[in-house]
Order: sequence, then structure tokens, then C-alpha cells
Amino acid sequence: MGIMIVGELINTSRKAIKEAVEIRDAAYIQKVALEQEQAGAHYIDVNCGTRVNDEEETMAWLVNTVQEVITNTPLCIDSPNHKAIKVGLELHKNGQPMVNSITAEKERFANVLPLIKEYKTKVVALLMSDAGMPDTAEDRIKVAEDLLPRLLDNGIPADDIYLDPLIKPISTGHMAGQEVLQTISYIKEKYPEVHMICGLSNVSYGLPNRKYLNRAFTINTMSFGMDSYILNPLDKESMRLIFSSQALLGRDPHCKGFLKAHRKGLFED
Amino acid sequence: MGIMIVGELINTSRKAIKEAVEIRDAAYIQKVALEQEQAGAHYIDVNCGTRVNDEEETMAWLVNTVQEVITNTPLCIDSPNHKAIKVGLELHKNGQPMVNSITAEKERFANVLPLIKEYKTKVVALLMSDAGMPDTAEDRIKVAEDLLPRLLDNGIPADDIYLDPLIKPISTGHMAGQEVLQTISYIKEKYPEVHMICGLSNVSYGLPNRKYLNRAFTINTMSFGMDSYILNPLDKESMRLIFSSQALLGRDPHCKGFLKAHRKGLFED
Repeated sequence: MGIMIVGELINTSRKAIKEAVEIRDAAYIQKVALEQEQAGAHYIDVNCGTRVNDEEETMAWLVNTVQEVITNTPLCIDSPNHKAIKVGLELHKNGQPMVNSITAEKERFANVLPLIKEYKTKVVALLMSDAGMPDTAEDRIKVAEDLLPRLLDNGIPADDIYLDPLIKPISTGHMAGQEVLQTISYIKEKYPEVHMICGLSNVSYGLPNRKYLNRAFTINTMSFGMDSYILNPLDKESMRLIFSSQALLGRDPHCKGFLKAHRKGLFED
Repeated sequence: MGIMIVGELINTSRKAIKEAVEIRDAAYIQKVALEQEQAGAHYIDVNCGTRVNDEEETMAWLVNTVQEVITNTPLCIDSPNHKAIKVGLELHKNGQPMVNSITAEKERFANVLPLIKEYKTKVVALLMSDAGMPDTAEDRIKVAEDLLPRLLDNGIPADDIYLDPLIKPISTGHMAGQEVLQTISYIKEKYPEVHMICGLSNVSYGLPNRKYLNRAFTINTMSFGMDSYILNPLDKESMRLIFSSQALLGRDPHCKGFLKAHRKGLFED
């Protein structure tokens, strides 16, 4: 299916969503869900991790609210808390759900794995261990070589696994992008069936013109084989570059996806 | 110096330039030259190859006309005709000129090489031989492995050589982009000192939304190590993505070039 897009906008760390959730403004949440679906998102992410006191209850409301209007596109249940993930999965109706995320951290792995198996979900696997956030490509590969076999050995199909290399801001070290690109090369060479995913906004943290950095890094990472993104699908420029890059990289025979996006009007302002 | 940009707009194959040259409208040519310099072009390309009957005379007029207003930025003398190249080089005043282009074709190589040596120019070396246009990465590498040693053996410094892999439209074969990317990987691995350059518009020929394809392919090729582009520097979106990508790929320590472009206002609409 080519590049997979997870629409990131329904997240209570964003001010407008935070406020809509507080007053249970279902119409606003549904509008954001529909806009993302219309823009080409394959999954709608739902994250209320900032609601520490009532995350489970909020997750239930969000999933139900979104599913009142979204009946074909599945959801990505996004939380560090396995109890909130369980609530979301239990209510999920639109095909195969996605879980964001499992990690190599001992406790989190033990808590999230049973959910992935029970609900046969796709899963974002962050390359993070109990040793903390990775820095170099070597750090990331070390975690991947531990986490990936454990997922596969537990019967999770390679095609359901989306490794997230965890992107650091280039403002904190100018090789931060290269470390990620090297990780992608290694993983796609050794495990071609496994997917790679990332969120994009971290890379540009602390710099001006962030949307350009985010867009360019989408194409940098795609060039090395990343095939899934958690992003704002309403950023038309990003989506256009992604459709273009897919055709240019030889992953869109006869430019079918590119021309379909063109006919759908995604290149019109 | 990071990415090198050759401004492509002064070319008589473009209608506005063709007409300006016909009526010797110096002011228009100078305006296009200045706009490209202001937008960040490191070289101003000058091409009047469509003027088959008076190319040498036209080249002399163009070079003089541009140099009346451009006194710091060197020119790229662009012609398949070594006599027109000689005329341009003889008149060139702004530092080290560039020649576009030499090829592995026997006659062209013999005619252009002495000019590169005499005027100590930078040179675009097209990966084309008497066997014709290359198709696969293998074809291109074969030509490079013949052409490059001959240039080096003739005393042309590696740092003055810009290999152009010759990009074909993806509309004629969906692997056309990949063949170029593989060529870049090979060359940059084996000859890290040699530069790689390309024009971008061919890749999108025959498809809609060409500017998006051209922009995305800039970033695809940069990701693999291409470091020079013959393009329209007035396409602000392209220039912004290039500055962004350079920082993301670790080729712009402390984001110096990116922040300089920001302060210069290149990210302002």
C-alpha cells in the first residue's frame, strides 16, 4: 500500500484538542477526525496522555466520539499507559487497530505485549530501553536487535511491526538526523518486512521554519526506506511531497498513487 | 561550502529569454541574473544553444551583459559547442568559471578538455558516451569509470568535477529515479571528492504537478550525496527545502547556513 500516514492531530497536548476534550465538544473532535481522513490519513491517532487523572475515561469518550463519524479508517490508540490502551482497543470497531506504543523497557513490554496479541493490532515499537533514549544509530540498532526478535518470537507478524527510531532535534547535535538515516538503512536491509515509522516534529525543535525542516526530513527518511509517518495530514505541502517522493523512489508503479492524489484534488490549493 | 546552486534561468530555450535575446533586451537579462544571485545562486548559467546560427556572438553578448551587473558571482558557460564555450570563457571575469559540459563522447571530450585546462574551470561532466544516453545505474557507472579517470589523469582536480548522471523521466519507467540514486551512492562512496550535479526538470516530464516532483527529487538525491543542482533559484520552496535538508543531513554544523538563509529572509513569503 505504499506510505502509511497516521494523522496526529487528536492529541490533548495540542491546545485546541485539550479544550475540546475539557468541554466534551464532540463536534470539534469529529471535524478534526474527518479532515484528516479526507486528507489521506490511513490511521487516526487518539492520544489523551496529558489527562493523567482520567485518561481511561477520556480515551473511551474520544474513541467513541471519533467512531461516530469515522467508520472505515482504523484508529491508532496512543498512550504510554497500558490501561488506557486496553480501553481504546476494547471499543475499537474499524478493522485492525494500531497501538502506539510498545518499547523494550521491561515493564512496558510486559504490559503492552498481551494487548497486541489479544487484539491482533499493528504496533509502534519505540527503540527505547530501560537504558533510556537512544543517541547514536548503534544505540538504536542494539535496542532493535533485542526488541524485534522478542516481538517476532511472540508471534507478532513482521508486517504489523512499525519501528520508531525516536528522532532527536538537530539543534542538539548536527548528526541527529544522520543517526536516524543510518538506523533505517540497517533495519530495512536486515528486516525488509518490518516497517519504520516516526513522528516528525522533534527533529526541528528549537529552530525557526520548522515546517520546512519537518517536510524535508520526511523526504530524507523516505529516501532510505521509512514507510510510515505520524504527521499532520492537513499540511498539504508535506502530503504532496510524500506522493511525489513515492513515485520518484520507484515505489509507485505507473505513478498510480501520485495520479490518484492528483485526481482527488490533493495538489489543488 | 555545502550545496552549490547553478541558476538555470538564462537559457534561450525559455520563451522570455529567447525574446529578450532577439531584441537585445539587456535590462531583462540583467534582472533575471540579479534575481538569481539574490536568491542564492552560486553560479549563473548562460545558455544560448538554440541560437544555432549565431551562438558565439550571442554568448559574447550574454556574458558581457550579465557581467555588467553581476560582479561577484561566476558564470556557468553552457553549450554543447566548444567554440561558444571558448567565447564565453575568454570574456569571463568573475573568478573561476564553470563549463557545462564535457562528456565521454570522443569528439566532445577532445574539444572541451583543452578549454577546461586552459581556463582552469569547474566542469559538468555528463555521464554520456558515444553509446548514447545511459539507462541503468550500471550504464552510468560504466561511463563514469571511463570519464573520471581520464579527467583526473589530465590534471583536472577532483574538486572541480561535477558528474551529471542524466536524469530520465519517471513517466518512461518507474525505476528511473532509483537508477540515479544508485549511481550517486556508488560515486560518492568511491570518489568522495568528486561532486555530483543534475538538472531537475527532466524527472517530472509528462506528469502533472511537476514542481512537486522536482522539489522532492532534489531532497531524494541530496539524501544520497548529490551536492549541486542546476535549478530555478526563484522557486523559494525548493531553496527552503534544500537549506533544511542540508542541516538535517549533518552537512551544516550548527545549522549555520540554514540560519543565515533565515536571517536573509529566504523563508519569508
